[in-house]
Amino acid sequence: MNSIHANAIVIDGLIISKWDRSVFEDMSKGGLTAANCTVSVWEDFKGTVHNIAQMKSLIRENADLLMLVRNTRDIEQAKLERKTGIILGFQNAHAFEDHLGHIEAFADMGVRVVQLCYNTQNLIGTGCYERDGGLSGYGHEVIAEMNRVGIMVDLSHVGAKTSEEAILASRKPVTYSHCLPAGLKEHPRNKSDEQLRFIAEHGGFIGVTMFPPFLRRGIEATVEDYVEALDYVINLVGEDCVGVGTDHTQGYGQDFFEHLTHDKGRHRRLTNFGTVLNPVGIRTIGEMPNLTAAMLHAGWPTRKIEKVIGGNWLRVFKEVWGA
Amino acid sequence: MNSIHANAIVIDGLIISKWDRSVFEDMSKGGLTAANCTVSVWEDFKGTVHNIAQMKSLIRENADLLMLVRNTRDIEQAKLERKTGIILGFQNAHAFEDHLGHIEAFADMGVRVVQLCYNTQNLIGTGCYERDGGLSGYGHEVIAEMNRVGIMVDLSHVGAKTSEEAILASRKPVTYSHCLPAGLKEHPRNKSDEQLRFIAEHGGFIGVTMFPPFLRRGIEATVEDYVEALDYVINLVGEDCVGVGTDHTQGYGQDFFEHLTHDKGRHRRLTNFGTVLNPVGIRTIGEMPNLTAAMLHAGWPTRKIEKVIGGNWLRVFKEVWGA
Repeated sequence: MNSIHANAIVIDGLIISKWDRSVFEDMSKGGLTAANCTVSVWEDFKGTVHNIAQMKSLIRENADLLMLVRNTRDIEQAKLERKTGIILGFQNAHAFEDHLGHIEAFADMGVRVVQLCYNTQNLIGTGCYERDGGLSGYGHEVIAEMNRVGIMVDLSHVGAKTSEEAILASRKPVTYSHCLPAGLKEHPRNKSDEQLRFIAEHGGFIGVTMFPPFLRRGIEATVEDYVEALDYVINLVGEDCVGVGTDHTQGYGQDFFEHLTHDKGRHRRLTNFGTVLNPVGIRTIGEMPNLTAAMLHAGWPTRKIEKVIGGNWLRVFKEVWGA
Repeated sequence: MNSIHANAIVIDGLIISKWDRSVFEDMSKGGLTAANCTVSVWEDFKGTVHNIAQMKSLIRENADLLMLVRNTRDIEQAKLERKTGIILGFQNAHAFEDHLGHIEAFADMGVRVVQLCYNTQNLIGTGCYERDGGLSGYGHEVIAEMNRVGIMVDLSHVGAKTSEEAILASRKPVTYSHCLPAGLKEHPRNKSDEQLRFIAEHGGFIGVTMFPPFLRRGIEATVEDYVEALDYVINLVGEDCVGVGTDHTQGYGQDFFEHLTHDKGRHRRLTNFGTVLNPVGIRTIGEMPNLTAAMLHAGWPTRKIEKVIGGNWLRVFKEVWGA
């Protein structure tokens, strides 16, 4: 592992892997200081509470590798202890159901990032795979409550209109935690230059994913293509509001992608990922040091690497979480 | 208000009043530093999450009078700010349902005291109004988890056998938070001398209630009768593990007592309270300073008053909550 990677705060803004010790060992091998780990996509309120309980059990059982993150001091502590901090996140606010009180309950449980919609319409707004009527009245109340209790609004899978209205509604920075630029490949999940500039101009944050179906070269891509995508976004919005959000799906197979690509996990098909094969060099979480090596190889100065590999996330999390 | 009351940490170990500003104003008038406030009796998991959200809304709306208590430092802070600290408590672990993971979720939300059973049988054990087969296997797991996450086990409405087994199972102090001695009046809700000695000998705590149906002189009682009941318990177990747990039901009428005296709030009748009229002198929460005055009048030394009016609760809460 190069010394920049070893010494940096390394934050992955989005991982949705199959949570077990092998993944946590790979996080350690990859030098991850913290990661936003998905614990809800289509589960309802109670199902999500159970997922959170399961993740907390795993954190206790793997306490030599992991700790729960409730604030950015915990991330700094994880770095000191050479552990990986688990940030609890949802990819769908479906779990909030129809009760604003659930939001503070989840915040109490440690949830720190929640994507408003996952691909399709819910009570709050609409996802990126269908006609988008924008942020609902309830959606406005949800964002105000998320701002109040310190849960970051994520818009990666959210439709363009709902995203724009959410960016304008939020008093705190929001994020596309895991997206790629449409300027490199057209795809309903990718964001146009205008969208990327718009979120950045409003104080928001962009995590760049390497999920192959959305990459310019798809499953032919290498870690260099991922650095190209990062640089594309940085050239648009500057280097202070961009980070990494890999979307690693480690440990999952085709069944899981079938689940993710159907509305509510079981209804109509929304998209087809084809073969999912991460870029050469960062195919697994444990290979993350190759990313800083590729940044170095691309001529990035140390300070830029430190910011993009985790420093920027740390700054924006502190703004949103309040500590 | 006498100076002992004004300067002391005053803790009420159990209040189940109708939560609104008039009750909170009376808590302030009564000089309450903190109170264990019931937010669940027969509600299920989600219903209880909603009750907690409602109480947190009330705390925010009445922030000039109230603050949420998560640890004993918060109680000390409430004293400094002349506010009343709200301790979230349940009178029934029914809300845990069949999932141990709900317990930490509630602890995260701030719940700090939970009674295992309310009058009748649940998944954990049995209440005081029916045949009691003791603590279930799940009940043992529930107590271990409550110990781990720092929620105090309350046994006031729990049957004798379940209580005894819970006292033996818990690694941390448990409590009869609101009970009276059977030595002064026989009643299924009152505790025998043996029961009171048993909990005390095992490091547990006794909060003494003034709920009239269980008092020797019933609705004829005065604050002096309540001091008599406190002294009866103190004579049995000493003055270090006894406190106040009034069971004030302020703002509620007959409908509420019908709800409480029927199994699950709606099925068979378990008992009949008759007229509920609190002892003269402490009929309302706002009159609590009359209690310290009556203790003084009964010849209690200052140190004994300070301990029983709140210092003892503070000590045992710190033991159970960990901070």
